[in-house]
Amino acid sequence: MTFNPGELPKKYKKEFQHSYTLGPFPTFELLRACPQHALGVYLHETFHQREKLEALCAEKGVPISLSAKALSKISNKEICYAAGVFEKFSVSLSETAPHIVLVNPADMGNLGTILRTVLGFGIRDIAIIEPAADLFSPKVVRASMGAMFRLRFSLFSSFSAYLTQYGNERALFPFMLDGAAVLTPESCPQTERYSLIFGNEAAGLPPDFQQYGQTLLIAQTPQVDSLNLSVAVGIGAYLFTQKNPPAPESFPDRA
Amino acid sequence: MTFNPGELPKKYKKEFQHSYTLGPFPTFELLRACPQHALGVYLHETFHQREKLEALCAEKGVPISLSAKALSKISNKEICYAAGVFEKFSVSLSETAPHIVLVNPADMGNLGTILRTVLGFGIRDIAIIEPAADLFSPKVVRASMGAMFRLRFSLFSSFSAYLTQYGNERALFPFMLDGAAVLTPESCPQTERYSLIFGNEAAGLPPDFQQYGQTLLIAQTPQVDSLNLSVAVGIGAYLFTQKNPPAPESFPDRA
Repeated sequence: MTFNPGELPKKYKKEFQHSYTLGPFPTFELLRACPQHALGVYLHETFHQREKLEALCAEKGVPISLSAKALSKISNKEICYAAGVFEKFSVSLSETAPHIVLVNPADMGNLGTILRTVLGFGIRDIAIIEPAADLFSPKVVRASMGAMFRLRFSLFSSFSAYLTQYGNERALFPFMLDGAAVLTPESCPQTERYSLIFGNEAAGLPPDFQQYGQTLLIAQTPQVDSLNLSVAVGIGAYLFTQKNPPAPESFPDRA
Repeated sequence: MTFNPGELPKKYKKEFQHSYTLGPFPTFELLRACPQHALGVYLHETFHQREKLEALCAEKGVPISLSAKALSKISNKEICYAAGVFEKFSVSLSETAPHIVLVNPADMGNLGTILRTVLGFGIRDIAIIEPAADLFSPKVVRASMGAMFRLRFSLFSSFSAYLTQYGNERALFPFMLDGAAVLTPESCPQTERYSLIFGNEAAGLPPDFQQYGQTLLIAQTPQVDSLNLSVAVGIGAYLFTQKNPPAPESFPDRA
């Protein structure tokens, strides 16, 4: 796909080879962290940070189109002051760093929140087992606040496909409501190369995940059915990174 | 408001004195935990748990209307198999139990997730400082998975109104990005009567909250702007209830 400022863009569809950052925040993040995948930027003439965004586009060599019409075409209802167009990409996971593995996540808002949360705790590698919500949907990009541009992520057709590629000498921790051990700040394992594995919002992980590694449970009262997925991932990632502080990386500006 | 099975209900509006539980899960929760506020239940004739729901309504003396038309009137797009109608209510907070104080929460999905999360960690008291998202919106009720029927909650016009009523001998912990102390599992305070205070999703707490109690910060990498509100509340509530296990209550069946 090339960016053609003279042509009106189409509303996002999953089969596209490109997607959009709707709104200034994720658009700035795209340009700062992933300019090599940015194809162009649409700008609203009344955007109050217009000059700043124009300067950043010029610096990164990304073309601009001043078009309120294009913006309203690709955004939903609300007024959108800036949007980026980027080509879809994936980034191989680190062999040695901690991973978050999401098995069949279905909710786009949750998925975006999870990306933002784990980046906030210094975990940069996300494996997604399909079928799953569309990672590149503008809704996910937006809920992630652009965090996805600072992460490595790969999609896998099955959990075994993930294991074949990355399972070597890696400690696996499936989070399950019938997990064998209660995860607490005290009991949280000390380990460097680990994967925290979470199931679908409604169904959780299938029972056969009991066979992998050490299953864990976040204690909760019987008054709730389960924790929200992004809260569960947040607590798991928080406790593991507290116990095993991640090494600082120069990854943020991988451009 | 009375429940009239012969009359079509109106789509929810904030000014109503009643609201709806859309879907089986929150409807069962309404009947189990708060039958005194349930006015009636709409049922779809193809609902696979129809007998179970009818039996529960009979036990609690709640009238039923078999009406797919009423259900499609009050629900959004998707097919809805059961819905409850309930009168709005509030429940005075406990003077001595821990509180979660939400200052101007704006997102209904976040608000519902927070209710479900804190109930999952055994905190039952929620203060909401207005303006705020409509706690009784069917969207909040649904995102809470019916947790709101097992909580005590009150609305306040300002934080000082909350303090006047409940601030006595209570340790206050405002969560702020420039909080004075980093909250960790080790440093988490031991205290019985405490309030965890969180600001709006976009703006956080206003700077003048620095004057109240001990401000806290959840450590996060500079790559993210802030944590998602429900994740921040989840981690705060998790750490405080781990350090200060809440006393078991007989509250769940307050009927």
